[in-house]
Amino acid sequence: MINVSPAPIYLALVHHPVYNKGMEVITTTITNLDLHDLARSARTYGVKRYYVINPLASQQAMVQRMYDYWVSDFGAEYNPNRREAFERIKVLGQLEEAVEAVEDIEDQSPLLVATDAREREGSITYSSLRQRIEEGDKPLLLLFGTGWGLSAELLDGADFYLQPIAGVDGYNHLSVRSAAAIILDRLLGARE
Amino acid sequence: MINVSPAPIYLALVHHPVYNKGMEVITTTITNLDLHDLARSARTYGVKRYYVINPLASQQAMVQRMYDYWVSDFGAEYNPNRREAFERIKVLGQLEEAVEAVEDIEDQSPLLVATDAREREGSITYSSLRQRIEEGDKPLLLLFGTGWGLSAELLDGADFYLQPIAGVDGYNHLSVRSAAAIILDRLLGARE
Repeated sequence: MINVSPAPIYLALVHHPVYNKGMEVITTTITNLDLHDLARSARTYGVKRYYVINPLASQQAMVQRMYDYWVSDFGAEYNPNRREAFERIKVLGQLEEAVEAVEDIEDQSPLLVATDAREREGSITYSSLRQRIEEGDKPLLLLFGTGWGLSAELLDGADFYLQPIAGVDGYNHLSVRSAAAIILDRLLGARE
Repeated sequence: MINVSPAPIYLALVHHPVYNKGMEVITTTITNLDLHDLARSARTYGVKRYYVINPLASQQAMVQRMYDYWVSDFGAEYNPNRREAFERIKVLGQLEEAVEAVEDIEDQSPLLVATDAREREGSITYSSLRQRIEEGDKPLLLLFGTGWGLSAELLDGADFYLQPIAGVDGYNHLSVRSAAAIILDRLLGARE
C-alpha cells in the first residue's frame, strides 16, 4: 500500500541539555512567549504536538498553569484561537520522553531532525526534507534548542540536521521563535 | 541604465492606528520581544531600518532606553550581535514620519506593502513581490500591525497588500514576530 498522507510532524523545544554563552551545558528557563509563539506556529502548520522539554518540576508546573488557563473555559472564551494552539503543548522532563510519546501515538519511532544556527557537515536541505514529508515518510520530531543551542550529544543523536538559516553576511542570530516559524514555513507552508 | 541591485527594504511595526479585539482603533503598547525579535529578523535579512511606530512619548522613551542599552559599549560587549540588530531600530510617532525617513535616505518614496491576517481582494503573491525586489524596484516599506491588525485607513493607503499566511483549516493567528519572520524569509530568504 502506498502511503500518500504527509508525514506527521512533531516539535520539541529543548531547555536541557543546551549550551550557555560559554558553551557549558545548562538548563534554561521557559519563556512565556516561546510557549505562545511556537504553539501558534505549530497550530498554523498542523504540527501534532509541541513538547516543551525541561527537567525542573517548578518549570513544568509553570507550563501546566498556563496550559490550564488557556485550555480552560474561561481562557477559551476569551480567546478560542489560543486554546487551539495551547492544546498541542505537553511539558516533559527529557527528550527521550517526547520520542516515546510520539511512538505511542504513531506506532513507530520518529526521525529526529535537529536545527542549529551553526553550519554542520552532512546537513539536509529544506527542499529534500520537504519532499520526504510530502511523500509520507516516518513521523518527524523537529528539535529546537534554547540558550546557545542544542548540546553536541543531541545533535550527534539526530537522524537529520537542517541547514542553518543563512542571514546577510553570515549573521545567524534569529530568536528561536522566529527560526521555528521560518523552518515550519519552509517545510510545510503553502507554495504559490 | 539598468539597476540590478535589489530594492532596499524597510519595515514598520505599527502600534497606532490598529484594531483591538472589538475592532476599535487603539494604540497598543510596545512589547520587549517585538523589538528584539523583529530587529534580529531585520538584521538577518538585510532590512535597512526597523521603524517602531507609536505616538506616546512614554513608549518612545522606553524604546530609546532599550536602544541606548544595546547600542552602548556595555550592551555591545555583552552581546555584539544584539547591537547589530538594535542599530536598525528607530522609534517614530506616525507612519508618515517613517515614509519621510525612507525618502530622506533613498531620495524616492517607498512603496507601502501592507500585511494582514485577513484575506483581501487584489493582494499580491510572495513570488511576484520577491521578483519585484530582485529586479531592483523602488524601496519597499513593509507594514506590520500589532493588536488585531492595521486599521482600514492604513490598509487602503498601501500600494500592495500581501496575501495572508495560510494555516491549516484557515487558522490565521500567528504572532507578529513569527509572521514577520516568515514574510521576510519568503521575500528575501536564500533559495536552495
